[in-house]
Amino acid sequence: MLTNTRTIRVQWGDCDPAGIVFYPRYFEWFDASTILLFEKATGLIKMRMLEKYNGAGLALLEARAVFKVASHYGEDVAIETQVTEFRRSSFFVHHKVSKGGTLALEGFETRVWTVRDASGDLKSGTLPSEILAGFRRA
Amino acid sequence: MLTNTRTIRVQWGDCDPAGIVFYPRYFEWFDASTILLFEKATGLIKMRMLEKYNGAGLALLEARAVFKVASHYGEDVAIETQVTEFRRSSFFVHHKVSKGGTLALEGFETRVWTVRDASGDLKSGTLPSEILAGFRRA
Amino acid sequence: MLTNTRTIRVQWGDCDPAGIVFYPRYFEWFDASTILLFEKATGLIKMRMLEKYNGAGLALLEARAVFKVASHYGEDVAIETQVTEFRRSSFFVHHKVSKGGTLALEGFETRVWTVRDASGDLKSGTLPSEILAGFRRA
Amino acid sequence: MLTNTRTIRVQWGDCDPAGIVFYPRYFEWFDASTILLFEKATGLIKMRMLEKYNGAGLALLEARAVFKVASHYGEDVAIETQVTEFRRSSFFVHHKVSKGGTLALEGFETRVWTVRDASGDLKSGTLPSEILAGFRRA
Repeated sequence: MLTNTRTIRVQWGDCDPAGIVFYPRYFEWFDASTILLFEKATGLIKMRMLEKYNGAGLALLEARAVFKVASHYGEDVAIETQVTEFRRSSFFVHHKVSKGGTLALEGFETRVWTVRDASGDLKSGTLPSEILAGFRRA
Repeated sequence: MLTNTRTIRVQWGDCDPAGIVFYPRYFEWFDASTILLFEKATGLIKMRMLEKYNGAGLALLEARAVFKVASHYGEDVAIETQVTEFRRSSFFVHHKVSKGGTLALEGFETRVWTVRDASGDLKSGTLPSEILAGFRRA
Repeated sequence: MLTNTRTIRVQWGDCDPAGIVFYPRYFEWFDASTILLFEKATGLIKMRMLEKYNGAGLALLEARAVFKVASHYGEDVAIETQVTEFRRSSFFVHHKVSKGGTLALEGFETRVWTVRDASGDLKSGTLPSEILAGFRRA
Repeated sequence: MLTNTRTIRVQWGDCDPAGIVFYPRYFEWFDASTILLFEKATGLIKMRMLEKYNGAGLALLEARAVFKVASHYGEDVAIETQVTEFRRSSFFVHHKVSKGGTLALEGFETRVWTVRDASGDLKSGTLPSEILAGFRRA
């Protein structure tokens, strides 16, 4: 399955008075990592992808993180992101954050491919097969 | 059980290009809401509480949010925060976010009362009975 | 001239490893304070105001802050916001941040009332007289 | 003079409902860019640098940004950072942010090398000559 890995240097402004990453930052990184993974699968930035496939977003149903080891200012963390399962419209994203080969935390997002119906309301839509193919091509 | 409720006006800078709250903001609000609840229980700001009870923090083991209804710029959301269970050193926090009486999302944090041992390392500690009493007094 | 004053409790997540407010937070507070001032003048949230007056935004030309005293976790700061001068389309905003009556920092924003021309491009527009009247009514 | 250049991909969560970078993000990037420049000059992360030279921080006296062209989600911006002048303890930082060779905005920070006196109070200190040498070596 397609994987996106990127390295983030923990900046001063990411950290709290305890000197460790303020935890909502991890969710910022997860959100961007999920988008980057879809961009890798489609070769399009999110907005172009939504336009092309008539999507309205990757709506979030649930987000979760399980923390093992804190990260500190100045450290480099690697975020490895995969979709672990695609259903008709929903999908499950898994983020593994590691420092020097040690697993520091894991993130999990449940999202749903969202479209606009004729009246403009948001509803779940079937994941476009071309996008799925982009994930399998990897 | 002690409850802390506060209202947050969704600001322009809290929202993403879809015009809805960028989801990590909710975790920022959860984190502050948990701290505010402990401050209400103890009558001390977090740093004074940690000093008084020899604590090193409210370390996060797990954070989770389940999203139901998106919130938009200019809306007021109410966050109601409770500890649903205290164990020896860990505890479970529940956040209910509502808009005009409708539940918009729920947040869940598992945290642990953390102390420093003689060598300066962090480890879980027994929750001080005075803090627990502050929660029950409500 | 119309003034908006609001109090912000400095939260844990607003602070850096030195235990003081991470400076970009102040600009987040300034941005929201400027919008809140316009909302007070017009009785409309920003998006309704833009719709009603055919505006496209309060584009920022320059932002500046002059720091005097650092603010720490748990402190309450008051932000007092005023427009110090209106020109045809641009205006100057002044934010005074104080702690317990002491001036902690000042912020300055130069902004311009922005509209969309027939081809959809953004350009500066004359500030609607109704909005100006709302500022003077105070 | 030593220069640090880095490229930032504008993420979804960096942008506001107008689809452009929420302006305080630029100051987050400036802050990190200034620190990265000092790390390049000294070969040390900020905390080690402060320890080695008995510093307490790079206190901010003034921050300013002049905006020319907005940046949108998905764009890559380059931030080029230089110290334009060193005085005894204060120094002036200049950030140029460009997109595809076009200047998008400029940032300016006035900072001061800060130390702790015998009683623990913060005060300005003479910039260590070794750090200055690191800037000139470039």
